[in-house]
Amino acid sequence: MGSEVTPLTPRYLALDLGGTNVRAAIAGVEGSLVTILGRDERPTPRESAEAIVAALVASARAALDAAGLRASDLVAAGCSAPGPLDHRTGVVHEAPNLTGFVAFPLGARLGAALGLDVFVDRDTATAAIGEALAGAARGARDFVYLTISTGLGGAIVSGGRMVRGASGTAGELGHWPVALPSCAGVPRCGCGAPGCAEAFAAGKNLAERAGRPDAAAVYAAAAAGDPGAATCVRDAEEALAALAVGIANVLNPERIVVGGAVAEHEPAHVLGPMRAAIAARAFRAPAAAVRVVPASLGPDVGLVGAALAACERAAGRGEWFL
Amino acid sequence: MGSEVTPLTPRYLALDLGGTNVRAAIAGVEGSLVTILGRDERPTPRESAEAIVAALVASARAALDAAGLRASDLVAAGCSAPGPLDHRTGVVHEAPNLTGFVAFPLGARLGAALGLDVFVDRDTATAAIGEALAGAARGARDFVYLTISTGLGGAIVSGGRMVRGASGTAGELGHWPVALPSCAGVPRCGCGAPGCAEAFAAGKNLAERAGRPDAAAVYAAAAAGDPGAATCVRDAEEALAALAVGIANVLNPERIVVGGAVAEHEPAHVLGPMRAAIAARAFRAPAAAVRVVPASLGPDVGLVGAALAACERAAGRGEWFL
Repeated sequence: MGSEVTPLTPRYLALDLGGTNVRAAIAGVEGSLVTILGRDERPTPRESAEAIVAALVASARAALDAAGLRASDLVAAGCSAPGPLDHRTGVVHEAPNLTGFVAFPLGARLGAALGLDVFVDRDTATAAIGEALAGAARGARDFVYLTISTGLGGAIVSGGRMVRGASGTAGELGHWPVALPSCAGVPRCGCGAPGCAEAFAAGKNLAERAGRPDAAAVYAAAAAGDPGAATCVRDAEEALAALAVGIANVLNPERIVVGGAVAEHEPAHVLGPMRAAIAARAFRAPAAAVRVVPASLGPDVGLVGAALAACERAAGRGEWFL
Repeated sequence: MGSEVTPLTPRYLALDLGGTNVRAAIAGVEGSLVTILGRDERPTPRESAEAIVAALVASARAALDAAGLRASDLVAAGCSAPGPLDHRTGVVHEAPNLTGFVAFPLGARLGAALGLDVFVDRDTATAAIGEALAGAARGARDFVYLTISTGLGGAIVSGGRMVRGASGTAGELGHWPVALPSCAGVPRCGCGAPGCAEAFAAGKNLAERAGRPDAAAVYAAAAAGDPGAATCVRDAEEALAALAVGIANVLNPERIVVGGAVAEHEPAHVLGPMRAAIAARAFRAPAAAVRVVPASLGPDVGLVGAALAACERAAGRGEWFL
């Protein structure tokens, strides 16, 4: 892929701020072709927001060194971050897994330290942009991106535009209730509400419900015949099936792109039930219009999406997702 | 209101095709002010699609007579119809409550008979357009319209544009599952799926579940202490609460406009639980951004919306909802 990059190829910094690791990459972008020229990864500090900014800046400098470039060689930077946040101003409203991130001006702080325009966006939105321009959602004007890993998040694109909502928090598909509070044994979600799809189907909640160390252990126990684990797996499948039917009926997308570690490792328990439920239970027209497909960008989705978003926004072409 | 209409005020024909009645109105439109100058209402024929077209045409002519006008005095016509349908071509895909309406070119047939451009749209979309331009959603760029009567339908507007989806069927908010199939006593919806919000909360389903003639009788029995009716009412409230929380979290609208006979007659069982659930269980940012409000156009919403939609589309200004 390096052969596609010429001295004239515009370079961007891509940052991916996660609860466990921060990652940085220098990316050459030609159209929708993203070539990573240097990268770095390090643990996310736990002590303060200042320490997290310092780690992102150090990671960016390490990626620049690896690519043999300086910040002045770059056009702009994109940063994928946990939300809720304001993607227009780069302020993170609140990120429970990041120490000190309350009303934190992440974009401005990174921009000042790096001497670059830094465009911040929610991790699921950045992933949807990446999959839309360079991945499994290419060519789709109406699609839903879902990620099923520790949590369950998403983003919605309608008629070629991202559905942002009145305060920029639209797309929290894991927090659509798929079970009523009066139903026996309905789990309470981390968000405090009963019966969210995330409470059944996200990795962390599934492991807690089944009393196992992680989601992989739950699926393994269910496969080995453990009845408690099997019930939890069935509930997770039912929740994802309900979510898929709801998405098809309510949003009528042409594609549902499903990423995240749980989806990657357990497609038969994730994509399978979603497809079967849409075929059996959604309305005919939206069922015929939609395909449920795996995400194609893998663990680099945040970096690729951040690089492409930075490119679009620096060129003034970002209207479609703003 | 008649004083707002001058000889120069453009006149439109508005048609509202329902399962029980067809209605027609001649409307003067000045900006978002709609003045009805003549109207007609008659039963929807049961024998054939041809008979339904004939009734709509006869109703239109009666409304013209009442207004003292001829078809050549009109700019265009709008028609609100049950879906799913293609609002671009005016073809109704399938309307289970209208005899013979399968792949039926309603817009073309009405246009030929009346000598007018007839713009057909789904009843919930027409209602959302009416509430957006002249009703309870005025000024909102992100809102959801819900109607709770015999069934439970809706329409979604995001960033000033209607969410249409890949095949034009988006907005079927009554068919988001809010209960899992494995939960005891989950009702099957008319659409065939288990646990849809409509299966719990729409008037027809609520009456059937409770074994009463209509929704009003169920609410009356619950108020009088009947435990079976009370359980059905509680389930309907829980389903509407889950729907409201899901809409807030997933779509982040600034308004949820709720119309339909059940919402009008039982606001304490509809708007109340929706507001309480959003305040208690939705994420903070979308909960702070949204207001749940009653629809304001009442039973004329279909006619007002059809007149305004015809005006917008005839003027080439309909991009926002196409």
